[in-house]
Amino acid sequence: MRAVDIIQKKKEGKTHTKEEIDFLVQGLLDGTIEDYQMAAWLMAVCFKGLDDDETAYLTEAFINSGDILDFSDISNIVADKHSTGGVGDKVTIVLIPLLASLGVPCAKLSGRGLGYTGGTVDKLESIPNFVCSLKDEDFKTQIKKIGAAISAQTPNLTPADGKIYALRDVTATVDNKSLICASVVSKKIASGADIIVLDVKYGAGAFIKTKEEAKELADLMIKTGAKLNRKISAVISSMEQPLGTHIGNSLEIIESIEFLKGNFNKDLYEIVLEIASKTLVLAHLAKDYKEADKMVKSAIKSGSALNKLKEIIKAQGGNPDCTDDYKLFNVGENKFEIKTDKDGYVSKLDALLIAKACKLLGAGRDKKSDLIDFGAGCILNKKTGDKVNAGDTLLTLFWNNIKEEKINEAKECAQSAFEYSSTAPENIPLIYKED
Amino acid sequence: MRAVDIIQKKKEGKTHTKEEIDFLVQGLLDGTIEDYQMAAWLMAVCFKGLDDDETAYLTEAFINSGDILDFSDISNIVADKHSTGGVGDKVTIVLIPLLASLGVPCAKLSGRGLGYTGGTVDKLESIPNFVCSLKDEDFKTQIKKIGAAISAQTPNLTPADGKIYALRDVTATVDNKSLICASVVSKKIASGADIIVLDVKYGAGAFIKTKEEAKELADLMIKTGAKLNRKISAVISSMEQPLGTHIGNSLEIIESIEFLKGNFNKDLYEIVLEIASKTLVLAHLAKDYKEADKMVKSAIKSGSALNKLKEIIKAQGGNPDCTDDYKLFNVGENKFEIKTDKDGYVSKLDALLIAKACKLLGAGRDKKSDLIDFGAGCILNKKTGDKVNAGDTLLTLFWNNIKEEKINEAKECAQSAFEYSSTAPENIPLIYKED
Repeated sequence: MRAVDIIQKKKEGKTHTKEEIDFLVQGLLDGTIEDYQMAAWLMAVCFKGLDDDETAYLTEAFINSGDILDFSDISNIVADKHSTGGVGDKVTIVLIPLLASLGVPCAKLSGRGLGYTGGTVDKLESIPNFVCSLKDEDFKTQIKKIGAAISAQTPNLTPADGKIYALRDVTATVDNKSLICASVVSKKIASGADIIVLDVKYGAGAFIKTKEEAKELADLMIKTGAKLNRKISAVISSMEQPLGTHIGNSLEIIESIEFLKGNFNKDLYEIVLEIASKTLVLAHLAKDYKEADKMVKSAIKSGSALNKLKEIIKAQGGNPDCTDDYKLFNVGENKFEIKTDKDGYVSKLDALLIAKACKLLGAGRDKKSDLIDFGAGCILNKKTGDKVNAGDTLLTLFWNNIKEEKINEAKECAQSAFEYSSTAPENIPLIYKED
Repeated sequence: MRAVDIIQKKKEGKTHTKEEIDFLVQGLLDGTIEDYQMAAWLMAVCFKGLDDDETAYLTEAFINSGDILDFSDISNIVADKHSTGGVGDKVTIVLIPLLASLGVPCAKLSGRGLGYTGGTVDKLESIPNFVCSLKDEDFKTQIKKIGAAISAQTPNLTPADGKIYALRDVTATVDNKSLICASVVSKKIASGADIIVLDVKYGAGAFIKTKEEAKELADLMIKTGAKLNRKISAVISSMEQPLGTHIGNSLEIIESIEFLKGNFNKDLYEIVLEIASKTLVLAHLAKDYKEADKMVKSAIKSGSALNKLKEIIKAQGGNPDCTDDYKLFNVGENKFEIKTDKDGYVSKLDALLIAKACKLLGAGRDKKSDLIDFGAGCILNKKTGDKVNAGDTLLTLFWNNIKEEKINEAKECAQSAFEYSSTAPENIPLIYKED
C-alpha cells in the first residue's frame, strides 16, 4: 500500500477500505506518511467526501491511536457532552454540576479556545487557582468521589486526531463534516463516556452556518456513534446571537453561578434543559422531557447543583467562596456602556461581531501561546426581540489594559452588532426540532 | 497574507492575484510556508484549476526562484526543445546536433528519467565517459564553441519547481495541466532559450492519454510563453506505440547515430523534421516546412549532423569513435527473439507494455538512487500496420544480469504488447494537425 495511491483514489472519488484508512492514520503517527501527504488527502476529502463507513473507520482509527478511558468500574451511565462551539456558550459549566447533582456521573474533557473567546478550560481557569490539567487517574478518582470532573484533554487521547486537527487548521480543510465528526466523536468515545450528548450549533457565531448543515453533521455523528456502539444524541441550536447574557471568561463563570442560583436567562435554560433531559432519559433517570424539567428545576431550587459546582471547584484547587464573592474574579476594571439612539426592536444581534469586540478587548487568542485576559468581555442588556428606546444601554464592555484604538474598535464592533426594526421581529426557535 | 487564506480561496474556486502566487512560492522556498500547506493548495488546484493568468504567475514565480541563463551575447536564436516524455523518445539526441549543424545554437537542459526507461541524460551517459553535469559556464562556453551542449538541469534553475515537483510526485497532484505547464515552461525559459519547441505526447505510452488533453496543454504552454514574451511552438504527437525501433539507453543512442547516418525509421524522422522545421522557421533560417525538409536531409546526407554529434560527444568527455564502433556501448549480452504465431497485421503495439518489459530487464528506475543497466532494452522488428506471418520475429530483447523470473515476465509483457487484425489497420497520423 502506498500513500500516493490512497490519495489518488480519494481524488478520483473512490471509497476507501478500513485497511487504507488505518494505513493512513497509523502511518501519520509512525512517520511513514508525511504531513504533506495527509494534507493532500484531507483536501481531496473536502472535495470528494467520506461515506458513513469511511467516517466510522476514521473515527475508530483516531480512537485506537491513543489511550481509551474506562469508567465501567464507576458506573454505566457516565455522561459527556460536546458543543461545536459558540459565543457565550457556558453550557458545560452549568450542566456538569447539574447532572452530577441529579446522579449522573460526568466525565468532561474540554479544550482551550482558539478564535474569538476562550474555551471551557480557559473559562474555568478564570476561577483563581482552578486546575484543569488533571492526570487520567486523578480525573477518575474525582468522578468516583464527587460524581464529576472537568479536565483539559490529555495528549494521550486520540493523538492522531490531534495531529490531523493541527494540520486541518492551517490547510483550510476544517469544514468537512466527516472530518469534524471523526474528530469530535473519537474524542468523546475515547473519553470513556457511555452517554454522549452533542450540541451542534449553526449561525453567525458558529463555524457551521446553516441549520441544514448542522442537521447533516448531527445525523452523521449519531450514525457514527451507532456504528461504534455508543449512544449519541444531538441537539441542534441556533447561534445567531450569543448564548445567555455574559461573554468573556470570568463573566461567563459568573453567569453560570447565577444560573445555578436560579437567576437564569431563558435561552441558556432552554439549551441546558434540552441537553440535561436527553441525558437523563438515556440514563433512565427521567422518563421524559417534562420529568427532566422538574428534576432540573428542583436541583437548582434546592441548591444541590450549586453545591456540586462548589465541590468541583474545591476538588480542582479553586476557591469555592468565589460563588458568593464575585470580587474574587478578575473582571475588567474599566467599563463602557454602549447605548442605542434608536426606538423599536432589536431585529438582529450578531454573535460574531460581539465575539470580535470581546476579542479586541483581550478575551480570546490567535495562537496557543497567546495570553487571555480573563477580565475582558461584555454583559448584554438587550437581545434579539427586545424593545429599545433611544438612550437605552445595549451592553456593557469590560477590559483591563488595552490600547485606546482597540477599545474604540471594540466599541464600534459592538455597536454594529445590533440591527433594529419598528415591529417585533419573528421569533426564531433557539432549538431546531424536526417535525 | 496567510497561507491558509490562499488555500481556502483556491478551494472555493476563486482566482489568485500575482502577489498571492508569489507569496506561496517564495514562502515555500524561505520556509514560511510549510510543505503540507503547499500540498493542500496543489490538491485544491487539481480540483479548481488555475486560469491562464494564474498559470503565467506561477510560471514566472518558478523562473524567478533561481538562476536565469542568458545567451544574448552568443545569439538571439538559441533553441531548446522539450518532450513531455514517451517510450523510445530519442528526438533530442538526433535533433540537437542536426539543428546545430544547420546554424541554430542549441542549449539543451535535460532530465534523468523516473519510470519505465531512462531520460535523455541517462541515454547520453550510456556513451562511455560522457559527462552530462556541466557547470553553467562550461555549458555556455561549449555552445559558443561548437553550437550545442546537452546538460543535466542544475539545481540553481527553478528550485521552487524542483521542490513542488517532488511534492506533486508523492501527493497525487501531478496531472493538472497548469501545474505541468508551469513546471515545463519555467524550466525552458530559465534555461535562456529564445526559441522553444515542445513535443506534447499523448497515448498509451505517455502520461497524457488523449489528443484533446494534449492539445489543451500545448495551447496553455504557448499562451503562457506569449504572456512571458517567449516564442513557444508545440507539436502534438501520438505515443500509442514506441517511437522508432530501439528502446533502452545504449540502444537508443545507436538508433540515433544510425538516424544521422541516413538510416532512419520514418516515424522518428517525421517528428524530428516537424520540430526542426518549426525551429528553423522561428529562427528565420527556413521559410517553410518544405525548405526545412531539404535542409535536414542535406545535413544528414553531407554527414554534417553526424559530425556535430561527434563534436558534442568529444566536448563532453565521450569517445566519438563510438559512432562507428557500437562495441564501445554496453548492449545486453543476452538476447531473445519474441516471435508471433499469427498471420495478419499488427493492429496495436502498446508502448507502455514494451516499456514495462524493458524496465523489467533493467532499463529504468523507480527511485533516483536506483541503478540503470544501459544495456537493457529491445529492438522492434514489427510496428503497428506491419504485415506478419507466423514465425516472424516481433522484437529482440536485450539484458545483462537479471533474474530468470523477471526475464520471463518481460517476455510475456513484450508478447502481450502486440495485437493483430486480418486486414491492414487504419493509419493514425503520428502528428496531430488541426484542420
